[in-house]
Amino acid sequence: VPPVELPEVGVRASPAAVRAWCQAIVESLGTPVDIAADVADVLVAADLRGVASHGTFRLPVYCRLAEAGVLAVEARPARIGGTSVISLWDGRDGWGAHAGRVLIDDAIARASSLGMAAALVRHASHFGIAGWYAMRAAAAGMIGVVMTNTSPLVAPTRGRGQVLGTNPIAVAAPSAEHGMFVLDMATSAITWGRVLVAQRRGQALPAHVAMDTGGDPSADPAAVLDGGALLPLGGLEESAGYKGYGLALMVDILTGVLAGANTGTRVVPFSTALGPSDLGQLFIAINPVAVDADDFDRRVDLLLEDVLSAPAAPGGNPGVVIPGQPEADRERLQRRIGIVLDELDHASLAELGGRLSVPFPETRPFRCDALEDWE
Amino acid sequence: VPPVELPEVGVRASPAAVRAWCQAIVESLGTPVDIAADVADVLVAADLRGVASHGTFRLPVYCRLAEAGVLAVEARPARIGGTSVISLWDGRDGWGAHAGRVLIDDAIARASSLGMAAALVRHASHFGIAGWYAMRAAAAGMIGVVMTNTSPLVAPTRGRGQVLGTNPIAVAAPSAEHGMFVLDMATSAITWGRVLVAQRRGQALPAHVAMDTGGDPSADPAAVLDGGALLPLGGLEESAGYKGYGLALMVDILTGVLAGANTGTRVVPFSTALGPSDLGQLFIAINPVAVDADDFDRRVDLLLEDVLSAPAAPGGNPGVVIPGQPEADRERLQRRIGIVLDELDHASLAELGGRLSVPFPETRPFRCDALEDWE
Repeated sequence: VPPVELPEVGVRASPAAVRAWCQAIVESLGTPVDIAADVADVLVAADLRGVASHGTFRLPVYCRLAEAGVLAVEARPARIGGTSVISLWDGRDGWGAHAGRVLIDDAIARASSLGMAAALVRHASHFGIAGWYAMRAAAAGMIGVVMTNTSPLVAPTRGRGQVLGTNPIAVAAPSAEHGMFVLDMATSAITWGRVLVAQRRGQALPAHVAMDTGGDPSADPAAVLDGGALLPLGGLEESAGYKGYGLALMVDILTGVLAGANTGTRVVPFSTALGPSDLGQLFIAINPVAVDADDFDRRVDLLLEDVLSAPAAPGGNPGVVIPGQPEADRERLQRRIGIVLDELDHASLAELGGRLSVPFPETRPFRCDALEDWE
Repeated sequence: VPPVELPEVGVRASPAAVRAWCQAIVESLGTPVDIAADVADVLVAADLRGVASHGTFRLPVYCRLAEAGVLAVEARPARIGGTSVISLWDGRDGWGAHAGRVLIDDAIARASSLGMAAALVRHASHFGIAGWYAMRAAAAGMIGVVMTNTSPLVAPTRGRGQVLGTNPIAVAAPSAEHGMFVLDMATSAITWGRVLVAQRRGQALPAHVAMDTGGDPSADPAAVLDGGALLPLGGLEESAGYKGYGLALMVDILTGVLAGANTGTRVVPFSTALGPSDLGQLFIAINPVAVDADDFDRRVDLLLEDVLSAPAAPGGNPGVVIPGQPEADRERLQRRIGIVLDELDHASLAELGGRLSVPFPETRPFRCDALEDWE
């Protein structure tokens, strides 16, 4: 998920202070300290990487779900079956970030000797950015592969309406010299969050990434949000949108179907309090050392140098970047200048802090055109 | 890989006869009988499924490689390492279809008790349609996931030139009522074979699936074939082409890098006799029963019924199909009327048969407009 553009104006807050605030908010709902720490880690990581749609911005929704009893704030995932290679867990509708952290750690620990291991969970909740869990495996020297199904927003190729989730796939791998390879992508052509951002900013959508309620492609955010749907990655059938459609089904099969969770249209939307989503999630870790790939990270470099050496496409193009690099750059920037929030997001979080008597941390003004002075 | 359109006119030949001929051709090169049988099975399966670009059409190239000593016709894959969960093999530059069959069978056998198992191969050769191996796992009641890297044809997002392979991903899973789910897709927006077909038929390409030698998007097959490159799935960056680019890198990391094979620009093109391609390939089998998903195939049905129930998009759209269904329909048709070849492909195979003294089987004329009479 590449970072969204920084807002023209907004506020910035210390990452450590936002993390502490986030943890305190989650604890204030009755969540045990260690679980709240996982939630804060994952949400603030999304903020830092510029994936604001999956960061602390979502806290008001999580809080509403917790207060409605739909999110079980004290629940811990329980292992209920599977094998030594692929474990099956019940997430008990608890915090997704906590279950996700426990499950990727479980897969990493077993992959260390087995070479490859996986953990599957049913009754799982929204877990933020899938890339966080894949990156945890990469930080341990492994390849991480993480998938989740999500509530329906995407039309199948040749069809219309919200049937499949944006069902993301995240893959991370360490390299020796070029930072971490991190692919963290929805299998749709665009996310719902980006449509909302486009509407808020009065921008048109790219062609062929979404449809209106009648099933015709539409670049108008309002028409899409009013009963429309997203197109799968690839867009229309002629530009291979059937591949994104197939990938969305693949993710649902490997998560919801395999884990015994909800699938397709049965996944309860995250932002309602109608009931738990009962998502399915899959966490895989592969240990290159165990498969005799001792020089794995240098061989990743060799591949990444191939793409970095490609001449830039014309049109003032800034040149090739490695997946995950823009997010890593954004994190480096925000660790220095603070987490940047636009005024609407800041107001929403400040209101939440006020309501739960955990005031949002002190902020300083942010202006995009002053960015160079801070760098 | 959805079927290519049937030619207006051509010939048709009995599938059993084409299979026997294919096996005899491969044996005539000095290939042991059992290895030749695997090659014939995989190539004829591609013909039957309508993926002509990966079927017997490729035999002249395979023969050229064998005659040049680049393809080791007698070589058998050897297990050289890995673990009980993820085995590592040396393909010894032998027939890709044989090594692929051995490796998916190895993964299936171990997944039966382990729940999930994988096999990795280096020094691998072109193995035809990735879907064949994934379908073999699905026929055993499992989920199959298969990937291979391929020689460079795809430009990275923001770059130009041939840097990454079309690096396909295949996934198959059984369903109880709706046939097999089979996703078999290149991670590029289009394949090189389709560009060749468009040129031969005088058709323009869809917008934003390929570029010319300067890096500008081009719908002209000739401009693409003359030093251009394919775009990743998703097309341009604004329509999420960076996701296809990331998927292509992911496949190269999970195959070439992890297996210790060639990667990126170092993969030797299949159709030259410059040397072995030294591909990397990954075969994964997941056994739903071992992870307590006993009703797996019925739960796949439930998901597939969701997409089949979606109303059709407007514009005379034929309605939603399940990935793999068009190919299965084509196979059903061709098992009845025979494998259809256009006149160019038929001439090429007849010439090969003449040269190797293994005459191509008897054919009957094919005319697309007479199809209804035969059905």
